[in-house]
Amino acid sequence: MASWVNVYLKNLTDEELTHEILPGKNHGVWMLGHLIASDDDLSLYLGKGPRLYPEYEGVFTQGSRLKPAGEYPAPSVLREQWYNVVEKNKKIYSELKDEELLQPHEMLKGKIGDDYFKTKGNVAINWLLHQLYVTGQLSVLRLACGKPGLV
Amino acid sequence: MASWVNVYLKNLTDEELTHEILPGKNHGVWMLGHLIASDDDLSLYLGKGPRLYPEYEGVFTQGSRLKPAGEYPAPSVLREQWYNVVEKNKKIYSELKDEELLQPHEMLKGKIGDDYFKTKGNVAINWLLHQLYVTGQLSVLRLACGKPGLV
Repeated sequence: MASWVNVYLKNLTDEELTHEILPGKNHGVWMLGHLIASDDDLSLYLGKGPRLYPEYEGVFTQGSRLKPAGEYPAPSVLREQWYNVVEKNKKIYSELKDEELLQPHEMLKGKIGDDYFKTKGNVAINWLLHQLYVTGQLSVLRLACGKPGLV
Repeated sequence: MASWVNVYLKNLTDEELTHEILPGKNHGVWMLGHLIASDDDLSLYLGKGPRLYPEYEGVFTQGSRLKPAGEYPAPSVLREQWYNVVEKNKKIYSELKDEELLQPHEMLKGKIGDDYFKTKGNVAINWLLHQLYVTGQLSVLRLACGKPGLV
């Protein structure tokens, strides 16, 4: 997953990340922040420790209010934080055991009920799919910046 | 994967699928065709039978030349074909055995070499990730059609 995401991130300059995907819509800075925030909480769901950047809750998570790109941390800072989250999660994935996959995820406190994700295995799959979903948006940002499509 | 893709497909009307994601760039019809063509060849890579729609090779695959939306099959036809491919692949996934995951995929004829995907397991993962990548593009098409973002 990370290698695929990173191809697209590396193909966008810091300046291009400040562009909006469509007028008035998300810019690349928000998308990169969203990648960080949404992969950082994997450790909470799998019971593998805290977030590295809990301050991004409500800033880069779903439903947060979009501000101009310049009001967020600089793209260079965000890129480094993204790589830190990737390294954290690579270690988590490498140590994950088969028997954990069917366990209720840790945000449920033991009660699956009608939760959408239910198990740690489903969390892992959906988190990976989500990152590629954001990468698809980054691929359009690349086009919006006038670069040839990798689409 | 399919349920996530389908949320976005169902949120776009047949007319909206004819819109371009950006001026002169891919429209939704091509993206839907690309979903079909790229998931249809999973059965070739896993050794589980032929494609349902081999005629889409070179039409909806990477590097094909984009034509106006009206020159492709109608969105309603493509939707039905997409669901047929999803059903084909659901059966393949449900019958896939652990020991197959580390086997060279069937397009390699037994020689892994420096192939990017190498194993059937890697093919399965990358095909799933790719479909979410296209879904991220569909999410931008939704915005381009003036609908509120699911982004």
